[in-house]
Order: sequence, then structure tokens, then C-alpha cells
Amino acid sequence: MTGPLNGIRVLDLTSMISGPIATMMLGDQGADVIKVEPLTGDLVRGLRADGAGGLSAMFISSNRSKRSLALNLKDPEGLELLKRLIPTTDVLVQNFRPGAIERMGLGEDTVRALRRDIVYVSISGYGETGPYAHKRVYDPMIQALSGLTSIQADAATGRPKMVRVIVPDKLTAVTAAQAITAALFARERTGKGQHIKLAMLDTMVAFLWPEAMTGYTFVGREVHTSRSQLTQDLIYETVDGYITVGAVSDTEWKALCRALDKSEWLEDERFKTLGDRSRNIKDRLDLTADTLKGNTSEYWLARLDAESVPCAPVLSRAEAIEHEQIRANELIRELEHPVVGTIRQPRPAARFDETPSDIQRHAPSLGEHTEEILRQELNLDSDEIEKLRSGGTILVWERL
Amino acid sequence: MTGPLNGIRVLDLTSMISGPIATMMLGDQGADVIKVEPLTGDLVRGLRADGAGGLSAMFISSNRSKRSLALNLKDPEGLELLKRLIPTTDVLVQNFRPGAIERMGLGEDTVRALRRDIVYVSISGYGETGPYAHKRVYDPMIQALSGLTSIQADAATGRPKMVRVIVPDKLTAVTAAQAITAALFARERTGKGQHIKLAMLDTMVAFLWPEAMTGYTFVGREVHTSRSQLTQDLIYETVDGYITVGAVSDTEWKALCRALDKSEWLEDERFKTLGDRSRNIKDRLDLTADTLKGNTSEYWLARLDAESVPCAPVLSRAEAIEHEQIRANELIRELEHPVVGTIRQPRPAARFDETPSDIQRHAPSLGEHTEEILRQELNLDSDEIEKLRSGGTILVWERL
Repeated sequence: MTGPLNGIRVLDLTSMISGPIATMMLGDQGADVIKVEPLTGDLVRGLRADGAGGLSAMFISSNRSKRSLALNLKDPEGLELLKRLIPTTDVLVQNFRPGAIERMGLGEDTVRALRRDIVYVSISGYGETGPYAHKRVYDPMIQALSGLTSIQADAATGRPKMVRVIVPDKLTAVTAAQAITAALFARERTGKGQHIKLAMLDTMVAFLWPEAMTGYTFVGREVHTSRSQLTQDLIYETVDGYITVGAVSDTEWKALCRALDKSEWLEDERFKTLGDRSRNIKDRLDLTADTLKGNTSEYWLARLDAESVPCAPVLSRAEAIEHEQIRANELIRELEHPVVGTIRQPRPAARFDETPSDIQRHAPSLGEHTEEILRQELNLDSDEIEKLRSGGTILVWERL
Repeated sequence: MTGPLNGIRVLDLTSMISGPIATMMLGDQGADVIKVEPLTGDLVRGLRADGAGGLSAMFISSNRSKRSLALNLKDPEGLELLKRLIPTTDVLVQNFRPGAIERMGLGEDTVRALRRDIVYVSISGYGETGPYAHKRVYDPMIQALSGLTSIQADAATGRPKMVRVIVPDKLTAVTAAQAITAALFARERTGKGQHIKLAMLDTMVAFLWPEAMTGYTFVGREVHTSRSQLTQDLIYETVDGYITVGAVSDTEWKALCRALDKSEWLEDERFKTLGDRSRNIKDRLDLTADTLKGNTSEYWLARLDAESVPCAPVLSRAEAIEHEQIRANELIRELEHPVVGTIRQPRPAARFDETPSDIQRHAPSLGEHTEEILRQELNLDSDEIEKLRSGGTILVWERL
């Protein structure tokens, strides 16, 4: 395997989304990620009936570049096998509800006794203490509590609305991957491991802050009215679809007027300066919208491009993956998965020239690597493996 | 300074959002981040008139934990000063449009000649080659091109809609911070620096993929209908506000029926299994909504909590920052900023027990550290600094 994290081993006890996508990023970057699953498998394997053999699309796209070890941790023998893997492990990640990992017998002290400098990572929904700490959590609860759904409220009715992408879950994954990587860097210099704690709620609020919480940044000068909820967004209808156009600076505004053949706007008192255009945003966007309605997307995009006005077509998902720029970036790969056939996956977004990061392995079937790991890492033989299997301690995947 | 990245120096040539938030994360984690600004300052300093002295709320929340060096890089003397800082620099980050950094005389080869093992980072909007590479870009263009606005389309009209948080910009920041940290880790082991390239467009599409692109994961079995666009979301109106409730598993569904006092739903053929409940989602959500309309948020949340049904109040931003769980997490800090007074900032989301990461410095005024850096790092004396200042090569901030 290649990648900046080559040589690092991760024991991944997480399930669902926030943990698995974090460790997938580490796996894509070359870490040896062992996904430890109960014998029933990660719930996401069968969450939608769109895949085959416990390989839903969502599972595949959250668990590539990992090996699967199916192990019953409620069985003392299973727990013991896991403990024997810890001395060769650099990072252990878990996202059980607070307190659960200690009850399983894998609390930080136990784990650190087996590997002194391990990076031990606890991802929670709400935090490890406080009134919500022990509540069940899904992505929508974090959207609601963080203020995101009120930011997204319907302009006409004021009804709060969800973002239809599980931003809190996946953002927590990326944030966790960064923190884990930082702890690994620090360990190289200090020789010390540590415990990282990360809550989805904290991650989402901190992420919102820079521009969405500007009204709450200056204490005593809070601005409660959300301008963004009252104005239309930058999507404009054309004769045959939608485009987005944004002209901020004076240069861009003048270019927009040229592209739209509206030299009279240049003389309009409402739009003279950046401040004027900001105050009269509704008039400005309404006039722009009225004009853009008069021709096709292709016509306007060509004119706007010619004047260097920031603009883009509004694409459906199907159009996005076929778009000429996404093709030029070689972002979407078609790969053969041994069970489900040809799949599409995006390569990791960040490209490294010395230690290329890439999709390292197909998403595993449940227990696909149980035997390999027990043999290679713990030196078990066929008889021992068969005994564990028939006793219900492990699950060994067998291709049908 | 403390933090996992203590000892690392970052030269930050970025402006706007995607670059500055990436380096702020590194700064919060202990890196010495030198924000190199033109004498006119980062545009975000004055983007909204809500701050003072070039310290808008958005600037403050994207540029803490950094020092500001105001330097005219178009002046050969300014460029030379920057070059003299490179030998002590570990990471150089830039987000100019492709080709611009080479024209400025700071292309990778030039920089690497001054520091062999530097991590050189190029953040772009669309990518460095391809038909869109040289176009101007703001966050809305990436939302439109990536498919995000079509995912967010209005359920009734089908009109694409923006997410009102600049997710592509800020997500690119977190993704860049992770990649930079991974390259620093690799450098510790290999001794080699490298060039990281990251496009906002790639970052957004890769982020959407796991659950939002499931319909395009299996080649030849594409599912173009977006179910999510046709169903309501999980926000329910109560007598006095809104709450969110999500019951997925059988256990959670039974608990929901108890909390809502609807034992008859348990016998309803439409809701027997997870599959039944998924097929009859509209009926299920409509019935739930009708019931929840009948009482207050507090009443329902208490009942749902008592049965361990995942639920949460829908909060405004003002309510979120005062919420008991966010208080328990000690997420929001009140700090004194020397120019603008008391401000609120979220601490970094990830908590490290050995190398605590935290807000290390207030967001700087333009050129606040010009003199300090030139004296300490380049050993310039007062006369030399005054000459550079009066000659328009540097800007030195003076507190009024």
C-alpha cells in the first residue's frame, strides 16, 4: 500500500457513518484499517436493499480500503483475540455511546496497558457528559440542535428544514480523520499517544461558526435577524434550466452588466457600490432573474464566461458525474468489486505527489479477512480457526 | 503554544475561506501560522460591515491563531523577504487561481529550492486543468456543479436550492487540513516533503458520495429518482415550535408508538417491519406529524426521551449557543479581542488530552506582526523596517 499513512494500523470498532468514513480516509491514505464487526455486521451493510450480500451502496462508499474481521466481542474469547491485536495497533477508534466501551472491557486504560502510545479515539453524538450525553442520536438531531435546520428554514413559511445530505455525520468523519492524523504526527515527535474526544454536535457548531454565526460573534452586539433567510439564493431560471451567477466586486458587477447587455444598471443609483448593491440585493437579484429568464442556460453561460463573471450550470447528480470538468479531474473511477460487480467511486479528493493516496481495497464482505488476520497477525492454525468459527466467536466469509 | 502541531511553521498565502479556515485549524493545533497578506488585506476583513478596523466577524472566525504579515509581493523586495522566510517554513499553502503562484515567482520549484522538504499545498476551485480550471469560483458555483443544489431542490416545485451554509468552502478547509497533516506525518518518517493538490469541486463530490450518490454507485443499475426529494423531512410541528424525531429500528419504532400512545400502530400492517415502514414512509410520517401537532415540544420531548426515542428540539442559532448540552461541552468561549472587544468563538471541536488544541491567538489586525516577524525571523533593524514601510513594501499595524 502507498499513501502518507503507510505503516499505520487502525483498529476500527465504529459502525454507521461518522467513524467508518473517518477510517476510510485513513485507509485511502495507506493505513492498514481493520474493521472489527459483530457477527451480524455493521448495520449499514443492509440499510438499503440496493446492493447484494451485505454490500449496500452506502456501505461500499464508507468502507473501502479496509479489511473486515468479524468477531463476537461479547464472547471472552473474541475479546481476547482483539486484545492480542492491540500491541501492533497505532490507532483505536470507537463511536459507541459514552460508557459502552468501558463495559465491553476496552476502556482506554485497558487498551493503553497493551499499547502504551496508542491514539485512542472516542467519537460521540452529543458529548461524553451533560444532559444529552446518553441519548440516542442520528444525523437529524444534530442538524436540529446545532441551528442548521433554522438556517435552512423555508423563506416563505419560516418552517425549519433539513439539509438532505448528512453533513454532521460526514463532517465529523473528516474532522476526526484530521485529529487522528495530527495525533499521529505528534506521536512521531513526542513518542506519546493520547485520547482524542470528538462530538458531532461540537463539530457541527464549530463548522457553522465562521459565516453562519456572524450575528453571535460580537458579544452585546448580537444580530438576530437572519438576512440569508429572507433573500432568494443565487439560482436563476433560464428558458431551459437553471444556472448560478455571482458578481461581488465592482469588476464582476460591471462584467455582469456587459454580459447581460444592461449598461443602464451601471448608472443605477441602487447599484453603484458594493454597499449599494448589498442594500438593494432584492432589486438586484430580481432584475437579474428577469433578464436571465429570457434565454437558454448555454447562451447565458457563454456570455458570462466571456466576461469572466463567476457562473456555473446547476447540475443534477447524473449530469455532475458526467460533467467535463469532473471528467478532466479524473475524479470518478469505475472499479470491479468481486461481489457486486462494476461500481463507481470517487478517488480521495486530496492528491499527494510523493505518497499517492488512493482506493486501496474493495469494501469487504463481512468477515472477508477474519482468517487472514488471525493467521498472519495471531498465528492461529486451521484447527483453532475452525473451533472459533463453530463456537460462534468469529465469522469467516465464504464466497458462494 | 501547545497542540499536536507545535513546532510546525505554516506560510499561509491564502485568502477568503477555504485556505484560511484550513490554516486556522493548524494554528489552533499549535502550528505557527504566518498569514501573508497584501497591503490591502484579505478581502474578508471588510466583507461585511459588522466588525471594526478590518476585523469582520467572518474574518475573526476564520483567522484566529495566526500572525499577520502585510507584504507587497509585487514589489521585488517584498518577494525577497518572503523567500527569506521559506527556509524555516514547513508548509506553504496557496489558493490563487491555477498558474498565478508561478507568475508571482513562488512556484513549487522555486520554493523547494529554498526548503527541500516543504509541504507545498495548492487549493483550487475546479481543479488545475480542464475547461473550468481558470474560471472564477465562489461557493455557489461548486454547490451547483456538484449536484448539491439539485439534491436540495424544493419538494413542491423541483426548483434547485442552495444550502445556506458555505459547505464546499469550509469542507475543503477541513479536508485540506487533514491532507496537510498527513503529509507532515509522512515527512517525519520519510524525510520528504511533497505537493498536495485539492479542488473544491472534487472535495464536494467525494463528500456527497457515500449516501447522496448511492443511485450512481452500481454501474448499469443507476437509480435516477431521488426518493429524498419527494418525502418530507423529519421536522415536526408542535403546538409551540418544532422538534425532530427519528425511529429506525424495531425497538425504536415500538418505543415511538408507546411515547405517542399509539399502540394501534404496532398492529398496523403498513408498519410491521423496517421494510414495511420504509415503503409506507409517507403514511408513517403523516400520522406522526398529526399526533405531534397536538401538544407542546416540551411535552413530546419528555415522553420520547423517557422511551429512548432519538429526538431533539429544533433550535434557532440564538437558542443553540445557550443550549444546556452545548454549555456542558464548554464549546463556546467568550474572549477579549484587543480591538473589537468581547467575542464568542467555538473552541476547536476535537479535544486532545496530551497536546491540548485551543484558540492560541486573537485574529490579527492587518500587519499586526509585520515588525515582530521581520525582527525576530529575519533580523531586520528599525531603520530597515522603516525604509520598507515608507517605501510601500510592508505595512506595519499601529494601534490607534
